[in-house]
Formats: sequence, C-alpha cells, structure tokens
Amino acid sequence: MNRYALGIDYGTNSCRSLLIDLDNGAEIGSTVFQYPSGEMGVLLDPKDPHIARQNPQDYLDGLVAVIRGALEQAAAKVTGFDPAQVVGIGIDTTGSTPIPVNREGTPLGLLPEFKDNLNAMVWLWKDHTGYAEAAEITQLAHQIRPNMIAKCGGIYSSEWFWSKILRLRRSDPQVFAAAYSFVEHCDWLPAVLAGNTNPLTLKRSVCAAGHKALFSTEWGGLPDKEFLSQLDPALADLRDRLYHEAHTSDVKAGELCAEWAERLGLKPGIALSVGAFDAHMGAVGAGIKEGTLVKILGTSTCDLMISPTSKPLADIPGVCGIVDGSVLPGYYGIEAGQSAVGDLFLWLVNHLVPESYGSTVGEKFVNMEKAMEGKKPGSTGLLALDWNNGNRTVLVDVRLTGLLLGQTLHTEAHEIYRAYIEATAFGALTIIKRVEEYGVKVDEIINTGGLSIKNATLMQCYADIIDKPMKVSQSEQTCALGAAIFAATAAGAGSLAELQAKVTAVREKVYHPIPENVAVYRELYALYRSLHDAFGTQEWSGKLHPVMKQLLDIRARQS
Amino acid sequence: MNRYALGIDYGTNSCRSLLIDLDNGAEIGSTVFQYPSGEMGVLLDPKDPHIARQNPQDYLDGLVAVIRGALEQAAAKVTGFDPAQVVGIGIDTTGSTPIPVNREGTPLGLLPEFKDNLNAMVWLWKDHTGYAEAAEITQLAHQIRPNMIAKCGGIYSSEWFWSKILRLRRSDPQVFAAAYSFVEHCDWLPAVLAGNTNPLTLKRSVCAAGHKALFSTEWGGLPDKEFLSQLDPALADLRDRLYHEAHTSDVKAGELCAEWAERLGLKPGIALSVGAFDAHMGAVGAGIKEGTLVKILGTSTCDLMISPTSKPLADIPGVCGIVDGSVLPGYYGIEAGQSAVGDLFLWLVNHLVPESYGSTVGEKFVNMEKAMEGKKPGSTGLLALDWNNGNRTVLVDVRLTGLLLGQTLHTEAHEIYRAYIEATAFGALTIIKRVEEYGVKVDEIINTGGLSIKNATLMQCYADIIDKPMKVSQSEQTCALGAAIFAATAAGAGSLAELQAKVTAVREKVYHPIPENVAVYRELYALYRSLHDAFGTQEWSGKLHPVMKQLLDIRARQS
Repeated sequence: MNRYALGIDYGTNSCRSLLIDLDNGAEIGSTVFQYPSGEMGVLLDPKDPHIARQNPQDYLDGLVAVIRGALEQAAAKVTGFDPAQVVGIGIDTTGSTPIPVNREGTPLGLLPEFKDNLNAMVWLWKDHTGYAEAAEITQLAHQIRPNMIAKCGGIYSSEWFWSKILRLRRSDPQVFAAAYSFVEHCDWLPAVLAGNTNPLTLKRSVCAAGHKALFSTEWGGLPDKEFLSQLDPALADLRDRLYHEAHTSDVKAGELCAEWAERLGLKPGIALSVGAFDAHMGAVGAGIKEGTLVKILGTSTCDLMISPTSKPLADIPGVCGIVDGSVLPGYYGIEAGQSAVGDLFLWLVNHLVPESYGSTVGEKFVNMEKAMEGKKPGSTGLLALDWNNGNRTVLVDVRLTGLLLGQTLHTEAHEIYRAYIEATAFGALTIIKRVEEYGVKVDEIINTGGLSIKNATLMQCYADIIDKPMKVSQSEQTCALGAAIFAATAAGAGSLAELQAKVTAVREKVYHPIPENVAVYRELYALYRSLHDAFGTQEWSGKLHPVMKQLLDIRARQS
Repeated sequence: MNRYALGIDYGTNSCRSLLIDLDNGAEIGSTVFQYPSGEMGVLLDPKDPHIARQNPQDYLDGLVAVIRGALEQAAAKVTGFDPAQVVGIGIDTTGSTPIPVNREGTPLGLLPEFKDNLNAMVWLWKDHTGYAEAAEITQLAHQIRPNMIAKCGGIYSSEWFWSKILRLRRSDPQVFAAAYSFVEHCDWLPAVLAGNTNPLTLKRSVCAAGHKALFSTEWGGLPDKEFLSQLDPALADLRDRLYHEAHTSDVKAGELCAEWAERLGLKPGIALSVGAFDAHMGAVGAGIKEGTLVKILGTSTCDLMISPTSKPLADIPGVCGIVDGSVLPGYYGIEAGQSAVGDLFLWLVNHLVPESYGSTVGEKFVNMEKAMEGKKPGSTGLLALDWNNGNRTVLVDVRLTGLLLGQTLHTEAHEIYRAYIEATAFGALTIIKRVEEYGVKVDEIINTGGLSIKNATLMQCYADIIDKPMKVSQSEQTCALGAAIFAATAAGAGSLAELQAKVTAVREKVYHPIPENVAVYRELYALYRSLHDAFGTQEWSGKLHPVMKQLLDIRARQS
C-alpha cells in the first residue's frame, strides 16, 4: 500500500501544500493559499518602512485550505487514494518570525483586545524595526560573549528573534507585558495541530533556535540571564518562559489531534515533525549533502551547506548561521543569504520599467530578457550593488542601500535589469569565496526556487560569474518537499538519506560556464568588489576613480 | 519708425527665429524648424555612441523657414510692419560644432561624393569621438604650452575644435584631406548670408575661437605650428588655412547679399553680426552684467559670467573657458557648464518611468513633480551623480558616468527624478563654489532656458541647494534675443548696454531659498561631494562607508 507525506511551506505572501508519494516523490497534490491580510499578506505601516507583520489567522485559514486542496487533488489524480495513507505532516516557515503568545500559546494578535495593534501580530522575518537593538546585541555580545556572536558571523541581525523581542519591549511595553512567551511561526503550527500550544512544553526547532535565538548546547541553551539582563531585565525574566531544549526535524513534535484531523480530513494520530525554516527544509528537498551548496532563489536568497559535526569547523566571519542540526542531524548547517534577489527584480519591474516592454510584469520580464540576448558581459557599462534590502552575507548590515553606476543617456531598463542580475550573482560569488576561504569546499551547486526554473538568463549569468555549473532541483517545491521528507522520517517511514535518495533529483538541463564570459566577469567582479568594500566596510581604503573608466573600457571591448 | 532685429538660434534639434522691436523688446515673430535629418536632427551611429553629427542642409532649410515664418507672424501681428524695418540678423549656434569645408567654403557633407559619410558632416558639439585626442592635446599642452591649457581650466575637451579635427585626421584621412579648411557652424551661416564663404576671409567669432580652438592674442592667435605639428604635421599645415583674427559679435560679419535677401524676403545690405555660441548670446539676452551668473538650463547647462578685462583674473581650474570678448567686448567671458541636465531628465522619463505616471512625457513630468510635493529634502534617501553624459565643469571629463545610490525596495521613479534634479543642483553649486574661490563673486543668478520657465520644482530645489534667490529671464528665447541685440548693435542701432537695458528683463516670480531646506541640503551636499571627489578625482582618499548610513539617518529625520 502506498504511503504519502504532506509538507506545508509558509512563505512571505502565501502558503502551499505538497503531498508526495514516498516511493518515488511523485507530487500528487499541491495547493496555494494567498494570505488575505495586509498587502500580499504583509501588514505594513506607511510611517515606518521597516515594519512587516503578519496576521496569525492567515496561517490557520491557509492550513485548512492547502491541506484540503491537496487531498482533493490527490483523490482526483490517484485511483484509490485514501487520506488515511498520509503518514505525517511537516511544516516549514519563514524565520525568524516570532509570535507573541499568551500563557495558553494563543497569539496575542488573535485576541480581540490586540486585533488592531501591529505590535501584537507576528513579526515577520523581514521586519527590520529592531535594527538599533540588533546593533546593541551585537555590541554587548562582542564585549561579554564573543563566542556567542562568533556563531552569527560576528553580527546579530535585525531579522532575528532577540532584536525583535527587545524592540517590542522598548516600543510597546504593554504588548510585551501581555506576552507570556514567544513562539516561532514554525513551532507554533505543529503545536496547534498536536493540540498543545503551551509555550513551556511545545517542541521547539533547533533550526529556529540555532543562531537566530542564540541557542546552543555549547553555552547551555539560550543566552544566559546575565547577558539578557544587560539588554533588559525583562528579557532575563522571559528566558524562563521560553525553552531549554530544541530539536531537529526528524523528531516528532506530536501527533495530529482529533479536532484538527477532523478539520483537515486526515487520520488522527499521524506524525507531526518538528518545524524548521523554509530554506533549511528546502535544502533537504533539493538533495543537500556534504560539498553541495543549495541556493534557494526567491524574493531573497538562502544559501545552505552542511559539514559533518565530526569535523572541526571554524566560525566564518559574516556567515550568519552555523548551527548543529539546523539542516540535517549530525551536520552543522551553514546558512548564508542575500536580502533581495527576486524582490530586487520585482522592484525594478514594478517601479521603473515602462510599458514598452509589455503590459504585465511577466511580459516585461520576458521582453527584457529577450532584449539582453546576444549581448556580451560588460556591454551595458553598468555595475550595481544588490543592497536595496541591505546585505545579509557577508556584511550582515541592513543599513546598506542600493547603488547603480555607469548610466549614460542611452541606458535602458533591460540593461539595468541585467546589471541587477549580475549584482546578485556577484553577491553570491562573494559568499562562496568566503565559505571556501574558511575550508568549506563547494563541489556542486543545486539551485531551487522560482527563479532557477523560470529564468534561464539568470542561471547562465550565475554560471558565468560563479564559474561553476548550475544545476536545478527537479521539484518546484523543495521547501515543502523537505518538510514532507521530515514528516515521513518522523513517522518512521525511512531514514532521511533513504528518503532524499528516493524523492529528490536535479533536472537534465545544467547551465555550464562559458569561458569567455567567465574571463570578463572576473574583471567586473574586481570592480564590484571595490564598490562592495568601499561602501560596505569601515576598513576599506583605496581609489574609486578607475571604476567608471574601466567599465567604459570593458564596454568598448564587449560592444 | 520702429526698427526690428532678427536673432536666429541654432540648437541641437531645431533652430528658431526671434524678431524683436528694438524699442521695447516686444517679440513680434518667432518660428521653430525641426531639423529633418537623423534622430531629431542628430546623425547617429549605433556602433559608436560617441558619434553625433548634423546635416548642413538642415541649417540652410531652417534659415529660410524660420525667417520667413517670423516675418509672416510680424505682418499679421503688427499693423504696418515692413520687412525693410529689420536692421540686421544675428546668429548663435551650438559649439564647438566645426564643419569640414572645401576651398569655396562649401561643407563637404553637401557634396555628392561625401553625402553618405558621417565624417564629412558637421561635427556636433556633443560628438565625443575625440576623447582620446582630447587627452592627448591636454597632455601635450601641459608639457609644452601650460599657459594655453590653463585657459581651458587645465583640460581640453573632446567637445572642442582640435579634438574633433585631430580625430577626423586619424579616423578618416580621406575626408580630412578633402577638407581645405574648417568653419564653425556660427561662422559659416553669417558668411553664407553675406555671400562670401571663403574660409580664408570670412569673419570668425572670438567666442568660438576662444578657448575652444585655443585662440588667444596672448600667444598670437591659434596654437603655434610647433605645438600643432607635435599632434600631427597636417594640423600645422591646416593652421595657414584657418584664421588669424577673431571678432566679438558687435562687429559686422558682412551685409545681406541680394540672393539671400530675395530668398528670405528682407532688404539686401542689412547688417549681419559676427556669430557666437548660443550660451554666450543667451547670457546677453538674459541681461548679463558683472556679478551676474546666467544659467542656461537646457538639455545641458551653460553657466556664464563676465569680469572686466581691466581687472586681473586668475585661471580657474576646471572652468573651461575664460576668453576676452566671448560674451561682451571689454570683459572676459567665463564659461562653465554641466553636460546633462534636461537630457538627464528626458533619459529618465523616456527609459525608466512607467505609464502609471501618465501616457506622455509631459504628463509623466507633471505627475512626478506632483508626487514630490510636500516631501522634504532627504526624504528619498537617494543621492545621484549627474554624470550620464560626463562632467564638463569642474572635472572636465567625458569618461565619467552616472551613479544612483540609496535605493530601497520602495524607491519610486519620482524620487529618482528628484534625486537627479538635486544632483544637477549639487553640480551647479560645485561650479559656483569654484569660481567664487577664485575671486569671481556671484551676486545674482538669472536662469533661462526651458527648465527655468516650466519647472518650478527644479527652480525651488536650485534655490534651496545653491542658497541664493533664483531669478528667471523674461524672454523664453534669450539666445535668439542676444543674437538680435548683437545684430542691432552691428547695425548701429544702439550700444549693447542700451539695448540690453531696453529689451531684457527678469520675471516677477523669484525663487527664494527656504532656510530649513538649505540646512538639510548642506548635509547632503557634503555626501554628494564625497561621491563626486571619490569617483571624479585621482587625488581623493577617504571613506565611503558612512554615506549610505548618513542618507538613512537624514531620511529618517525628514520623513
């Protein structure tokens, strides 16, 4: 009898389900639910562009919709399909996306008294209101807990747990006081399904806890009270109402409770695996192994690698997360990323691309890519920094912004688009150079996420700039696939390695570097690196006068 | 009996006439002629973006059209108007815009054998093909004729006469050999009207000859043969076929010949004043006097000042032209400029502004300006360098390109437009600071050109950034008005000062600096200057890391 597992992937704007056949990875059901609240699911405040919150009700409504949707599709597609054949549910979410909850684990945002207060809502990963608090945490950790901050690449981010909690404490003490505890989005949903949201006992993800909440067995779990109390005594008190243990996702978070089994149309008691962040599960769904870099190319980009815990691994400056078990048990997960990739292109097309390229976003992208065809590297004369949303790796600084250089009176939108694609590739190369410099070798790159499938121009550009073949994951839903793999493991349906081998694959089409492009991009990277270091580091000193002239020389040669 | 004078202004894309009443400056006729050749009158080559040529036939066709047009309008408007009341014609053109001509003074581009050769056409001011030659001339002059290059602000431009001639010699020796001589556009047309285009005897403009052809009585006219022969022996030979005298525009270039009088419908024998470049005549038409800076705001910008020749005047580094008599006899003309102002905005609106702002260029500008209303300086978080067409003053370097910094994922087109307006104002301020540093005081600023009349947002921004009141010239056609004033002077209808007092004026509306904006722009200018010096000078050393952060701080304060 066939067995199936469900993976649910909670993204920034929507959630989606994936129901897979555990024998072969066949995807027999998948539905998407757009979060109805705010602007494409994100609650914004025009007064502060750093604010990005979510409504927890969207998560619950989405859960029902996407699971029921997948089951209906499976029933239509597979003869004899029975929801009772589903052995487990795995969940991945964005992160760090903490939810202030009351003593029962109910999000404050679901309570009538807080329904209009953005601070009581879910604090989405890309909420950057805590940038000053992040700097404060970074500074304090360097002073008194250097080992702790070293694990974060030397800089604690405003995207992470404690920056947000401290920011809430400072900016809205009333909501902070009402929050008995805080639960990551990825921990809350398995707890809801298990029927136990008690924040003191629900199972927490080591992936979420890892560097983002500064959790490590090395120093006894979360940061010690002395450290927290120097930030704010209330944080030290809070520590007792958080957690002392965190788990990898092959562990069961619980079993599906009767009430939710009924709502979802599934068998009660099936396995719920411990949640994790989307990228980490995506890496598993893409087939991560030692030596493989998985790049998840979405609105932002996440880069994941693993290194066996049996081997010593140095801290890597600017690489924000090295956490035991965050991707696979028995391995350090190494996480890096770029704050805006798809988002950068979308910003461009939404705000700066005229209708001469088409009337829809899709048409504009296609026609801009067409307009680039046959144009050689360097022929635009442009160079950009991909920092419109800050720089996650290797600078770990949200207070950086975009830069575009080399414009003439003839520069066109599709050339700027190309410059931005190149900028994201230069950013990706900077990350690879850094991890390799610290002993983590990149033998293979598997790409996943929408851009890897839809954008051949981008993939070729990445191959040429990074100078390595670009492979693309078979599944379009690697995050949900990873979550389903963990669900199956938690249900005892096989080991992670067995399941990865059965259900993950790469596509036949591989993008190989073109040697003459590689050579030109090497020159352009040196110029990118000048700008990167000049604007991104305090240490830099040098000359920028040659940059525009060298770009003109390269353009003249390549035109 | 009323007397009238005609000024003809040859721009980059069109020419226009202005017929004025010499008693009161009333504009009784004015017609525009769009050059029919090339792209908006400019002959381009897709293989080389530096090429910008023109068809001399367009000038002749335009001459007839705009003079006849103006006379017709005058006849309709003024009872009893008689073309015989027109006392003279003055002409201004772009420059340096040299024309290769044969022994008779006929442009090679008008000869059948050269009609398809761009190199035989008019070399328009903005043709930058001679950038390497400009660098060579600069270098040689620094070595052996430092006094000569000092008059050009230390750098000889690719926009100027000898760069273009040398480039032609190098790139197309056949056309060079066929050229008996070279005549500036502004010198050729009065010669045509006078019926004598002999290149050895036609009257040359000191404004055109001035620094642009390195002409000065200080060293006996054009550069000496030794200097020229080191560039190329053919240039030394050419020197004998150019000129040894040059004249201010109050001098008669000749009298209208019968043939052209017939074609134009004017009285034969009326005065033709010596031609000059548009900006210089525009300054006169705007009412230039000692202490007044006239800013001509067009596709590019020209800044003109004068200083009495009775007073010593130092060379000003980076200020490209200080020429005795180039604006008014008895004064040094001081010329500076910015290579792209209106062109920069047009580039933006044509290539990067979506239809959400409107369906036409005009609508887009209006709606972008509306979208900026009430927004404080610094609230965009953006900073730009206005170098999409290089930098004329104070860097004198065509091999510079644009830069835009500070973009986020929320940046909108109108904010970028504002950043470019500000960038051009910062560029303008840099020029003013430089001339004042060398003892030329700016007591008053009169603006002229399309942008000064149409763009109140820009004018207020200039007032706030430059921290001086911005006045606007009454006439919309100050260049043609200046040409008409010179025509009248050459005809003996009055002195320049008398005529300027009678026919020039500024508008009632003056843009005054707003103190709180001035303060913020002072901070932003310091950041602009960091970028300007870092990318524009070889000497710079410093840190750019604070730039993005300070922009974010200012944005937070101003939002």
